[in-house]
Amino acid sequence: MGDFCIGQEIVEEKLFTEDQVRRFAELSGDRNPLHMDEGYAGRSRFHGRIVHGILVAGVISKIIGTQLPGEGSIYLEQNIQFRKPVYIDEKIIVKVKITGIANNIVTLETNAYKEDECLAVKGTAKILYEG
Amino acid sequence: MGDFCIGQEIVEEKLFTEDQVRRFAELSGDRNPLHMDEGYAGRSRFHGRIVHGILVAGVISKIIGTQLPGEGSIYLEQNIQFRKPVYIDEKIIVKVKITGIANNIVTLETNAYKEDECLAVKGTAKILYEG
Repeated sequence: MGDFCIGQEIVEEKLFTEDQVRRFAELSGDRNPLHMDEGYAGRSRFHGRIVHGILVAGVISKIIGTQLPGEGSIYLEQNIQFRKPVYIDEKIIVKVKITGIANNIVTLETNAYKEDECLAVKGTAKILYEG
Repeated sequence: MGDFCIGQEIVEEKLFTEDQVRRFAELSGDRNPLHMDEGYAGRSRFHGRIVHGILVAGVISKIIGTQLPGEGSIYLEQNIQFRKPVYIDEKIIVKVKITGIANNIVTLETNAYKEDECLAVKGTAKILYEG
């Protein structure tokens, strides 16, 4: 088991551009107009185009797979609640924190916040660590 | 509320190519060698390169956002367990099924199976439907 401890945390600022949303839509096939259509999204409850929730989850997965715990991590579980929309070109702060270590199972809190500190995405992850 | 019922299901075959895995790695920054490095992945417990779990989740999100319930769906929650690896160029069968409808909240079972019918990904989703 690597040199980790409960409470250890990675904090990363992130912003998704229109180009990144378009590329994820092409890759996943998810062309929901809330993400893709300025007019439709503007008339929706969100009043603008929002980023695919799973694209935000991708940042969490990236931090886990490459930073904390990093290489040797095997994803077992990700639970995620989408609390507030994340807009194209909106800066968010992603925080991934170790909440438990037992044998080679690591549990993490995986949240993303808006600049006003409101939670946009709230979640937990479970990892098998073989590093 | 649209014309949905409990038990309604979308079944979709899916296969992720090396190119798609590379594009997702670029987009998310997740260059975990289990996904990217043939040699490293070959020596791992999986004996080959596996697809990012969140990329598999992207297919679920696509089905929800564009087919069932489709346009008007707002993702509230996705819980996902990665039970077995999905390999590059491996065909999987994704099944998204409505399990509950209450007011405008739709709950779904969101699973992906390997060709031997073993569960690769097991999950549930909760959607606000405004269609």
